[in-house]
Amino acid sequence: MTDNTSNSPAFSFKNNENANQGQTFDIDSVFQSLKYNEQGLIPAIAQQYDTKEVLMMAWMNAASLRETVDKGRVCYFSRSRQSLWRKGETSGQVQVLKELRMDCDGDTLLVLVDQTGPACHTGRRNCFYLAVNQDGINNITVTDAPLIDPKELYKK
Amino acid sequence: MTDNTSNSPAFSFKNNENANQGQTFDIDSVFQSLKYNEQGLIPAIAQQYDTKEVLMMAWMNAASLRETVDKGRVCYFSRSRQSLWRKGETSGQVQVLKELRMDCDGDTLLVLVDQTGPACHTGRRNCFYLAVNQDGINNITVTDAPLIDPKELYKK
Repeated sequence: MTDNTSNSPAFSFKNNENANQGQTFDIDSVFQSLKYNEQGLIPAIAQQYDTKEVLMMAWMNAASLRETVDKGRVCYFSRSRQSLWRKGETSGQVQVLKELRMDCDGDTLLVLVDQTGPACHTGRRNCFYLAVNQDGINNITVTDAPLIDPKELYKK
Repeated sequence: MTDNTSNSPAFSFKNNENANQGQTFDIDSVFQSLKYNEQGLIPAIAQQYDTKEVLMMAWMNAASLRETVDKGRVCYFSRSRQSLWRKGETSGQVQVLKELRMDCDGDTLLVLVDQTGPACHTGRRNCFYLAVNQDGINNITVTDAPLIDPKELYKK
């Protein structure tokens, strides 16, 4: 685990925008320069690594990010419970980390994962099942059915 | 344009979690129930509709969301400029809307787009070019080179 007393020199996202492909930087320097919001959180988009399906978006704090990288298992920070949220801890629907990416200004994470079963607490594979499409912009359509009854997911 | 005085009955994300595939809801009811943060903003993930590449994440307010759906061209809200940000207005790198999705609890948007050229202001196709992977977790690697010099993008 890395704490905030790291002696790594700070990384500047701005000054490294023209870094060459293949160039590397120290992880602690980069992580300590991430831009967390006022609650100490950063948004994390979870994408299934092979199909590229966007599964969900949740939030991480510095501790959950560090745990995710160290253990290779995705851990978020639950805003409702105000505690670490080890994805799949209750439901068994874990996310194995394949790759973690940061955006150009260091305020968003993209986690490439291998998702077991449904990512969504409704039992659907992904959380984005309410859609407006260009064929009928006056309606929102439910695009997906649950893979499993959510009662089955959380009864353990 | 829809304003906040809409008379549509409020939609409950929670109460409709078990809605059937193909079921539809009135767009105004759903939009007025979206959960914006204290700044009146909601995160919007942009994904290239055919390749499924995650391009960027930015923020929308109610007005930019409405404009995006009405015009079929993605408009964000710029937190730094505190104004509507019609993506590609300066650079020409527009995002044509293909489909807009909302997540299960109505606090995140997924916009499926057709992106012209680079989505990232650094000239890269997407913003997520800084990666930690499981082969070498002590380093962050730059994974992509710019498609175009950013000076070329913004000189117009």
